[in-house]
Amino acid sequence: MYSGVQFSIYPMADDFVGIITGALGALDPYRERLRIETDDVSTLLVGPPELLFPALRDVHVAVARSGVHCVLSATVSRGCPGGEDQSICDTDRVIGAVGPLAERIEGALERIADAGRTSQDVTGQLALYVLGSDTHMAEVAGCIELLEQSGLRVKMKNFVTKFAGDAGPVYAALGETFMRIGPPDGGHLTLDLTVSANSPSPKG
Amino acid sequence: MYSGVQFSIYPMADDFVGIITGALGALDPYRERLRIETDDVSTLLVGPPELLFPALRDVHVAVARSGVHCVLSATVSRGCPGGEDQSICDTDRVIGAVGPLAERIEGALERIADAGRTSQDVTGQLALYVLGSDTHMAEVAGCIELLEQSGLRVKMKNFVTKFAGDAGPVYAALGETFMRIGPPDGGHLTLDLTVSANSPSPKG
Repeated sequence: MYSGVQFSIYPMADDFVGIITGALGALDPYRERLRIETDDVSTLLVGPPELLFPALRDVHVAVARSGVHCVLSATVSRGCPGGEDQSICDTDRVIGAVGPLAERIEGALERIADAGRTSQDVTGQLALYVLGSDTHMAEVAGCIELLEQSGLRVKMKNFVTKFAGDAGPVYAALGETFMRIGPPDGGHLTLDLTVSANSPSPKG
Repeated sequence: MYSGVQFSIYPMADDFVGIITGALGALDPYRERLRIETDDVSTLLVGPPELLFPALRDVHVAVARSGVHCVLSATVSRGCPGGEDQSICDTDRVIGAVGPLAERIEGALERIADAGRTSQDVTGQLALYVLGSDTHMAEVAGCIELLEQSGLRVKMKNFVTKFAGDAGPVYAALGETFMRIGPPDGGHLTLDLTVSANSPSPKG
């Protein structure tokens, strides 16, 4: 099952090039198992679904450690029928809406509880899309329930669901959502994701 | 038909607050017809679908005029069944996959050709999602065809379609895509959109 992400990170600072370059080492532990390609708009990661969100977390936290306001924006996808067969994406994890929602959430919560904390707070929002299936709205409701039960601060907005918490559990919850919500094994699911750190704006 | 966008703009500069504040006046001409709300992560616009992309263009070009590298990121939606009935979104335009693709593209090209140029080049990428319908992949192909015929520089990437050109025709093409691709009248369509200006990276 083809899985990956196009992501960008935006440090709101004059030295954005130096900050990004300095943080790219955070991807080094993943280079053996992820295909990584960068152009002038975004960086592509292709590989096992369970590695994508740890990689995003590590890059984002590395940039946020500089203290600057920085936002990670990502288009995450699994099961896209346009992708060629990608053995690099093989995983031992069960992927998709396999089993009742309550059991999927229970399994997710166990892993989120085990997520290491980073001492870096983040606030973000996501839209989840189930393609080629009539279960879209039901799975969106399941996504919100998973996030609410995971201990994050969750708020409904137009078009998106907002969340806040430590980057460790936040990215763990996003990863579990990506793997346990959506169509069954191999189906097409995408996330439109924004995660912000060190914003000077009052939290709302 | 409920339509709107959650968008953020990221100036890669120490003075990002001043730059954003200075550019918000670009939204003034739209305040009567759009509902506008901002929090610490994004700004919401709700209103007629044909006004969304001109408003995004005007804010982005206003920020880009400062010369800084700045990226606009947006989650655009129409026909979301979660939204209450929004008379503010009423439009005289025909919305959705009404008529054969070739006719829809022809109508789009006429409007894109009329779009004023801004002398601001932008590069971006989008993912288009048709929800609750089995026409997703066919309409994605239609979206790519529309963008290719519109005179923009178009390139396929994993998960997204990349485009480049003057911000005037670019945002016009995105708006026409939003209105003419997807499910028929009232169906649910979303765009996951990134548009970059003044990037110091080599164009790829």
